[in-house]
Amino acid sequence: MKIAIVGSGAIGCYYGARLLVSGEDVRFLMRSDLGTVREKGLQIRSPDGDLNLTQVPAYGTTSEIGLADLVLVTLKTTSNDALKTLIPPLLGRQTILLTLQNGLGNEEFLAEHFEPEHVTGGLCFVCLTRTAPGFIEHYGHGRIAIGEMSGPPSDRVRDIVARFSKAGIDCHAVDDLPLARWRKLVWNIPFNGLSIAAGKATVEDLLADRYLRIEVGEIMREVISLANALGHPLSAGKIVDPEIARSENMGPYRPSSLIDFERGLPVEVESIWGEPVRLARKIGHPVPRIELLYALLRRLAA
Amino acid sequence: MKIAIVGSGAIGCYYGARLLVSGEDVRFLMRSDLGTVREKGLQIRSPDGDLNLTQVPAYGTTSEIGLADLVLVTLKTTSNDALKTLIPPLLGRQTILLTLQNGLGNEEFLAEHFEPEHVTGGLCFVCLTRTAPGFIEHYGHGRIAIGEMSGPPSDRVRDIVARFSKAGIDCHAVDDLPLARWRKLVWNIPFNGLSIAAGKATVEDLLADRYLRIEVGEIMREVISLANALGHPLSAGKIVDPEIARSENMGPYRPSSLIDFERGLPVEVESIWGEPVRLARKIGHPVPRIELLYALLRRLAA
Repeated sequence: MKIAIVGSGAIGCYYGARLLVSGEDVRFLMRSDLGTVREKGLQIRSPDGDLNLTQVPAYGTTSEIGLADLVLVTLKTTSNDALKTLIPPLLGRQTILLTLQNGLGNEEFLAEHFEPEHVTGGLCFVCLTRTAPGFIEHYGHGRIAIGEMSGPPSDRVRDIVARFSKAGIDCHAVDDLPLARWRKLVWNIPFNGLSIAAGKATVEDLLADRYLRIEVGEIMREVISLANALGHPLSAGKIVDPEIARSENMGPYRPSSLIDFERGLPVEVESIWGEPVRLARKIGHPVPRIELLYALLRRLAA
Repeated sequence: MKIAIVGSGAIGCYYGARLLVSGEDVRFLMRSDLGTVREKGLQIRSPDGDLNLTQVPAYGTTSEIGLADLVLVTLKTTSNDALKTLIPPLLGRQTILLTLQNGLGNEEFLAEHFEPEHVTGGLCFVCLTRTAPGFIEHYGHGRIAIGEMSGPPSDRVRDIVARFSKAGIDCHAVDDLPLARWRKLVWNIPFNGLSIAAGKATVEDLLADRYLRIEVGEIMREVISLANALGHPLSAGKIVDPEIARSENMGPYRPSSLIDFERGLPVEVESIWGEPVRLARKIGHPVPRIELLYALLRRLAA
């Protein structure tokens, strides 16, 4: 299967490398790292096994890659506009677009600019970072959940899951991708947001502060209440306390948005906070804390 | 009238100096500036007339000042605990305590630790800052509103107003001091808070940002709704839009809390945000934005 990786940051390189090693015809679109990777290859350090790829099929344009069977969209959502010109050279009648991007609105963005029938999406639960050009550090986890934009998994989704699994990636199909996205936002909206707004706070810092800990729970409740109003069944009673308890074990973990923020990189403010706020306004559902957090983050980090 | 100024920062020095020049027996309690002021005096630069006081009755302890007729409490609220030991040497049977401090809970604090019948309060609408030891810069405004803890102005309040007026201070009595405090908080809670939480934003910055401007209005509405629930009649319809329009004329004005924050000084987080949040919880009234702002400010600036 010819797989184009559009956006060869940490996520794109990590999963692309595993798929390449498993025998797929992977082609990486690279920008800043292109020269280094062509010269020195791509190295992944991982508790699941290091990978040292000396010959990496890295390209500077999608025209050079040409039509693909599968496009992994792993660009940061802050660069989504670029997809309008990056995708067309890759897109044949049967091409599957699989966005592994954060937050909401990414499948919808692809469906709006290309045909909806191409679009699938997935969520990554993984801790990794690009420490230098061509060098990815994988700290742990790595699960991916993949599904159709709506509805249960199709054959093409099952085929992708099979290929990812064969590559040693913990991967499963989801029955309800939008629900899975909302489920992930229950954690990301409060923790990623407060970690920046409260002045570079780790998960541990946020939970150790009596008042911020309350806000974490209240923001989770707002996310769930909005998801419910939009028709996605999540239960605050079953989620909030267990999520906070689970987060207690994370120690001084720095959410990915905080890492971007500290490095001076763009934070995915629109896909994580902006989209939910816009959806809430559209249906007149109050999300006062998320709205305030969004307004602060737009100025602090967008 | 023997007037003790407890807390000789910008507010205490400014009003104390005007009262001294008008002939009142003013005694300043000073800490860090004591040596400089005794040696070099106190200088006020003001559009209402400069003052150069060479002989300043400045003291290092309230015992040296002794019983006073009126105590102007102008300490920052972050130092309120110190009042428990500073006030007693000044306090005779007829002594009036007049707190000119920011936010809520200051009259209540004095009433709790001394007898409530001593306590009056006031609000200052003034732009000034202490630029160096013994040197106060007055930029503009200067009005003071004074009242009893509750109920209409008494004779003693009218007497204080008369003395302040004689000293050239724009001063009037208020019928309802708690209402006046809430009225002031309608501006201070959003602007002072967001100016810090949004990353050192001036009033102009906040209003130029489409989303933060909405939050300013929404936070004002929360303050008014809480004030209403506590029995203080304020009308959001009459206040919010005019307050925002008035603030448009302030330009790159930096709220006093932002100035403190930028100088690394303690910000009055508890009296401005903490007290309202505690009152809201007591009556079960939702103030989600103020609560989030308070939680952020506690960590950022307390």
